[in-house]
Amino acid sequence: MENRCEEMRDKLLCLLGDDGFVSGERLANDLRVSRTAVWKQIESLRKLGYEIESVKNKGYRLVSRPDVPIPEEIISGLDTQIVGRGVVYFKALSSTNVYARKLVDDGVAEGTVVVADVQHRGRGRKDRTWFSPEDGLWFSVILSPGIPPQRGMMLTMVASVSVVQAMRDVTGLSPVIKWPNDVLIDGKKVCGVLTELDAEMDRINYSIVGIGVNVNNRLDEGLYEKATTLLEEFGSKVSRVQLLRCILKRFDENYLRLMEGDYGFIRDKWVSMSNIVDRKVLVRDDDKTIQGIVSGVDEDGCLILKTDSGTQRIFSGDVEYL
Amino acid sequence: MENRCEEMRDKLLCLLGDDGFVSGERLANDLRVSRTAVWKQIESLRKLGYEIESVKNKGYRLVSRPDVPIPEEIISGLDTQIVGRGVVYFKALSSTNVYARKLVDDGVAEGTVVVADVQHRGRGRKDRTWFSPEDGLWFSVILSPGIPPQRGMMLTMVASVSVVQAMRDVTGLSPVIKWPNDVLIDGKKVCGVLTELDAEMDRINYSIVGIGVNVNNRLDEGLYEKATTLLEEFGSKVSRVQLLRCILKRFDENYLRLMEGDYGFIRDKWVSMSNIVDRKVLVRDDDKTIQGIVSGVDEDGCLILKTDSGTQRIFSGDVEYL
Repeated sequence: MENRCEEMRDKLLCLLGDDGFVSGERLANDLRVSRTAVWKQIESLRKLGYEIESVKNKGYRLVSRPDVPIPEEIISGLDTQIVGRGVVYFKALSSTNVYARKLVDDGVAEGTVVVADVQHRGRGRKDRTWFSPEDGLWFSVILSPGIPPQRGMMLTMVASVSVVQAMRDVTGLSPVIKWPNDVLIDGKKVCGVLTELDAEMDRINYSIVGIGVNVNNRLDEGLYEKATTLLEEFGSKVSRVQLLRCILKRFDENYLRLMEGDYGFIRDKWVSMSNIVDRKVLVRDDDKTIQGIVSGVDEDGCLILKTDSGTQRIFSGDVEYL
Repeated sequence: MENRCEEMRDKLLCLLGDDGFVSGERLANDLRVSRTAVWKQIESLRKLGYEIESVKNKGYRLVSRPDVPIPEEIISGLDTQIVGRGVVYFKALSSTNVYARKLVDDGVAEGTVVVADVQHRGRGRKDRTWFSPEDGLWFSVILSPGIPPQRGMMLTMVASVSVVQAMRDVTGLSPVIKWPNDVLIDGKKVCGVLTELDAEMDRINYSIVGIGVNVNNRLDEGLYEKATTLLEEFGSKVSRVQLLRCILKRFDENYLRLMEGDYGFIRDKWVSMSNIVDRKVLVRDDDKTIQGIVSGVDEDGCLILKTDSGTQRIFSGDVEYL
């Protein structure tokens, strides 16, 4: 029933288009429903945030679309092969990653995206809290890449690269990637990625890639020095719908490259968007620290660090530039 | 209630010891229960397969223990730090790996072992069926190693090395490890390992290491050319209880080495027990094949293969010796 409604709303939005009035009679004819049914759907669209003018003898006119990442706005004309083939939207969830896992257990298709306006228990790496209030973009992508778990970090790289590309496309800003999972603007965090894997020894069964972007939202108190929003950096509101569509489009392109086995392409893109190579860094991991100069990033996503005691591969940690 | 029974049976077994009669009165006194309660526990032990003689005016005598991997037989005096701290036994399960995952969701402690006499849906790598009838050893170990997922294959290596050590200890046989997850005797498979991971990008949350050993069981029809049993190779029945205890003991030792970060130790042990280095091999992975000479195994568990087009790291596949 819910699906039929969504389908009808989708068609109705298509018919309304973006210019001029369409008569209620024509809408009813094209949708093969009564004029009362058309009116009900118009009302339900208004509740979702669509502004629709209605004038006697002229009909209905779509004035503006809501900036809410509902499936109607995200999927229509998205034209991707895998990522975003399905979108599930909630006003609020505890965590989009947790919900996405449930969907996997229910057998949902690869590429399905779970998006929520608010996360009550948004998480970052190592169980850190991720503040996820209204007007940000909090979503998870369900993937079943079948690549070895050693290559799992590549999924985080695909996500980060796609976010940077989309931010450039939509705002013209030039974000920078920070190993292992952050996107920064002017040194402040604007996006984080949390990739989770379920794997056998030699292949990933499925992966949930969670992406949080500070778009037009407020930040948690005390985070203003370390984090920023696109609103802050761009100077005016950024459309969450446009940004999400763009991220999904780029994600799809990059993910397909990865599925072709082109790890080098993703790694090189990632390196070109990061500023880590040749930098002197301190890496903290739990109670250990290690210092050195980054000579590169390998195709497993590990940092290659030149230290006083030789070259080391770094799998995890928090990086501080020295 | 079930736990209290197990605890009392455990104490009763200790009191009975392995030599001579112990009077019902003394058992009742030491256990602080009635003589009727002692008798009930004796009956429940008999049902589990313990042979217990009872003679008027002398009391009870433990004649023999069952060769069934019940917690009473496995845990008592095992003296490990992590692996085998808890044992959950079933006469039959669909799959010990699947059940172990459920236990993780219920918050069970690291090191808990799930063992079943029969698996109705035992699985190997890539969803292959693993035939698991009576008299074999089918179990899973729950671990939360906190190592990076790139290093997940090391858990399989720890398992394989421990199995080989235990087989040597118990039978004197000298099995050989075949990459990535098999243990062979005279070229025939006697054990397989199925490691599953749940991970974030930079650390494994938990892992289920499933181990299947052909001990005294029959083999699936058509497998006689490719597989064997310890019974077949050793020439007489091998105690499943003794073997499992020995594997868990070895597993604990090797796992602790891994937790200290000593990947090299595990890798070198593994290499010394395999016969793959310097061998000419063909590796099949899905529809691809690759041929070369194995120059080593790295600390991520990958095969290093010298091919005509250079050196390659192999993450997965089935190996055929040429």
